[in-house]
Amino acid sequence: GVTEHENYFSREYLSRMSDKRTDSGWLSAKQSSPETVFLLFHNLDPLVTSGPEHMNNSQAKLKLCRLKRDSVGVLLKKSDIVVVFLGVEKQECSSLSSVSKEEDGLIAWFALNVEENPSEILKIEDSHSFFLQGPMPTLLMLNEDEGGIIAQARSVLAWHSRYSFCPTCGGKTKVAEGGYKRTCLTEGCKSLLGIHSTCYPRVDPVVIMLVIHPDGNQCLLGRKKTFPPGMFSCLAGFIEPGETIENAVRREVMEESGVTVGPVRYVSCQPWPMPSSLMIGCISVAVSTDIKVDKDEIEEARWFTRQQVIDAIVKSSKAVLTMPPRQAIAHYLVKHWTCLNSNL
Amino acid sequence: GVTEHENYFSREYLSRMSDKRTDSGWLSAKQSSPETVFLLFHNLDPLVTSGPEHMNNSQAKLKLCRLKRDSVGVLLKKSDIVVVFLGVEKQECSSLSSVSKEEDGLIAWFALNVEENPSEILKIEDSHSFFLQGPMPTLLMLNEDEGGIIAQARSVLAWHSRYSFCPTCGGKTKVAEGGYKRTCLTEGCKSLLGIHSTCYPRVDPVVIMLVIHPDGNQCLLGRKKTFPPGMFSCLAGFIEPGETIENAVRREVMEESGVTVGPVRYVSCQPWPMPSSLMIGCISVAVSTDIKVDKDEIEEARWFTRQQVIDAIVKSSKAVLTMPPRQAIAHYLVKHWTCLNSNL
Ligand SMILES: Nc1ncnc2c1ncn2[C@@H]1O[C@H](COP(=O)(O)O)[C@@H](O)[C@H]1O
Ligand SMILES: Nc1ncnc2c1ncn2[C@@H]1O[C@H](COP(=O)(O)O)[C@@H](O)[C@H]1O
Ligand SMILES: [Mg+2]
Ligand SMILES: [Mg+2]
Ligand SMILES: [Mg+2]
Ligand SMILES: [Mg+2]
Ligand SMILES: [Mg+2]
Ligand SMILES: [Mg+2]
Ligand SMILES: [Zn+2]
Ligand SMILES: [Zn+2]
Repeated sequence: GVTEHENYFSREYLSRMSDKRTDSGWLSAKQSSPETVFLLFHNLDPLVTSGPEHMNNSQAKLKLCRLKRDSVGVLLKKSDIVVVFLGVEKQECSSLSSVSKEEDGLIAWFALNVEENPSEILKIEDSHSFFLQGPMPTLLMLNEDEGGIIAQARSVLAWHSRYSFCPTCGGKTKVAEGGYKRTCLTEGCKSLLGIHSTCYPRVDPVVIMLVIHPDGNQCLLGRKKTFPPGMFSCLAGFIEPGETIENAVRREVMEESGVTVGPVRYVSCQPWPMPSSLMIGCISVAVSTDIKVDKDEIEEARWFTRQQVIDAIVKSSKAVLTMPPRQAIAHYLVKHWTCLNSNL
Repeated sequence: GVTEHENYFSREYLSRMSDKRTDSGWLSAKQSSPETVFLLFHNLDPLVTSGPEHMNNSQAKLKLCRLKRDSVGVLLKKSDIVVVFLGVEKQECSSLSSVSKEEDGLIAWFALNVEENPSEILKIEDSHSFFLQGPMPTLLMLNEDEGGIIAQARSVLAWHSRYSFCPTCGGKTKVAEGGYKRTCLTEGCKSLLGIHSTCYPRVDPVVIMLVIHPDGNQCLLGRKKTFPPGMFSCLAGFIEPGETIENAVRREVMEESGVTVGPVRYVSCQPWPMPSSLMIGCISVAVSTDIKVDKDEIEEARWFTRQQVIDAIVKSSKAVLTMPPRQAIAHYLVKHWTCLNSNL
């Protein structure tokens, strides 16, 4: 049977409706509609609220501020502002459904990023609202629906903030297609002939893997110097050009720990919008066990027994390590393994 | 059990030895070593040979020219040439092994790309050599080892040819780390603070999927206007920022064919160096069957029975469609499905 685990940052709360990105009339009508929802970011930090009135139906401590046209109108008029069309509420989720005043019944969402703190010029009525400093670990404090929205919005906005010039000629670019394209303004630039990746947001595929000991009862975890004391996680690394997922797993594990990996199996993936990675989670089986860490990247790597990671997951007082939070795919990969047979 | 299918473009013939990328002394020693192998590209087309002397052990009609220091010396001296370190021959593959004259016994490979036709200035003795015009379908004519080498070399070289300017400030960049990094030359550029994707080669994750009919006995294939008459293939599309593999499969199938997909399962992946994609191959199950194609992207999409695709795979005279070549992961996905039980 096929079961799909849903990680944090993975939920599709909105329908992206990519066909509307080229419909500038529709986009601008939605931007002036009173139903439309705007999310505001300041240097990629989202405006959130901790107001008690938002907390009734949610376990999350924070909630994205859903601004309306009148609050952001002054920003939309600025010429240098990047506005990204996120999608529309799915019919079954829509807060308005049949009572919508929209002609097509679709509630659109947009995201805006500003570099200067906009609090002065904005009319935001919610006194509990603030820009959530992060990204980590604060971005993990939203609910699952909002985690998915943030993953999309923050990745695209981060691309705009780093890719405003054409990498092919160095010239200026203009935003197009609802924020999903940047077109070079230099006449005759090679990037304007044919279709080129330079115009589109970047997604960096990363492998993240749990390596199982040949005895089937231990797994390999490592720690970076920057981790809190005692915390260990799965090894991970960027997939390189011309490389498969499986070969990237074997290469990164060898580079970072000196361990040779044989079979690799895909388990689950997670968008990681810091700035725009796709974490491809795998489980793999070691065929050697001696550890030799790459000290540039990893401070320590160690084999832990199944019982040791179970103690860490349940936060037992006996635990000899701590684990990344449940919102991280590393946590899920370890937990998933603890439920498998000892030989995978 | 875990079995891994090896697609064309996927073989790791070389060991990348990424730790050597920052060892400029080692890299320049290898560039002046007589054992080192250089691959030459002209506008991303590789220099190959069809000479009969190369054909003895190979089914492939073409072979990459393995140039030596003396043939490319004049190019290496040019200041604007991009040289990419590909890796070293694995000990078990190395043509020299114990009789190597290298101090460390490692045979290094590099790739070079030139924009002007270098035939005039080069000393290439092989009269059967030429730049293989392509990329498609000619790049599929190499053997499996060379397919893997080309996947890496062409992706990185294509990145250099499109990303010579800093996307953050528009300034010039210089090549670093054996061709795996471009560093901005503008003092104070934001890209120099911290680690940013702008400095590293791009890999674009793409989903490619076989969609199975709810009856378990048909699959959905589509054709682009640019396909040869009668050819159908799997639907495919770029993974977007903030999206999982599984959600991208469902979104692209819906966009391109109007079919709703339920469960998705990862099968196998393939680097696709045109210019630098990673094709993530999935099999998925439809929960609706009416087709409504997106005419911008797809000319036609249709359900084909298992027998119809088997006829196409074996190139039967009864075949009502043709399929992509065996080197394409689309071919493998279809073939893989024909061997599965009707309910996955
Ligand atoms: N797209 C990218 N973004 C950031 N760092 C990258 C990227 N590609 C390669 N790197 C390098 O990969 C290192 C992290 O190693 P790893 O995650 O193990 O592959 C970084 O310090 C960078 O030097
Ligand atoms: N990295 C990229 N490279 C090329 N085209 C892209 C990229 N990202 C998005 N696209 C767009 O995706 C279209 C192809 O659609 P699809 O492959 O179905 O996603 C292209 O025509 C581009 O408009
Ligand atoms: Mg790493
Ligand atoms: Mg690494
Ligand atoms: Mg790496
Ligand atoms: Mg497509
Ligand atoms: Mg598409
Ligand atoms: Mg697409
Ligand atoms: Zn340009
Ligand atoms: Zn710069």
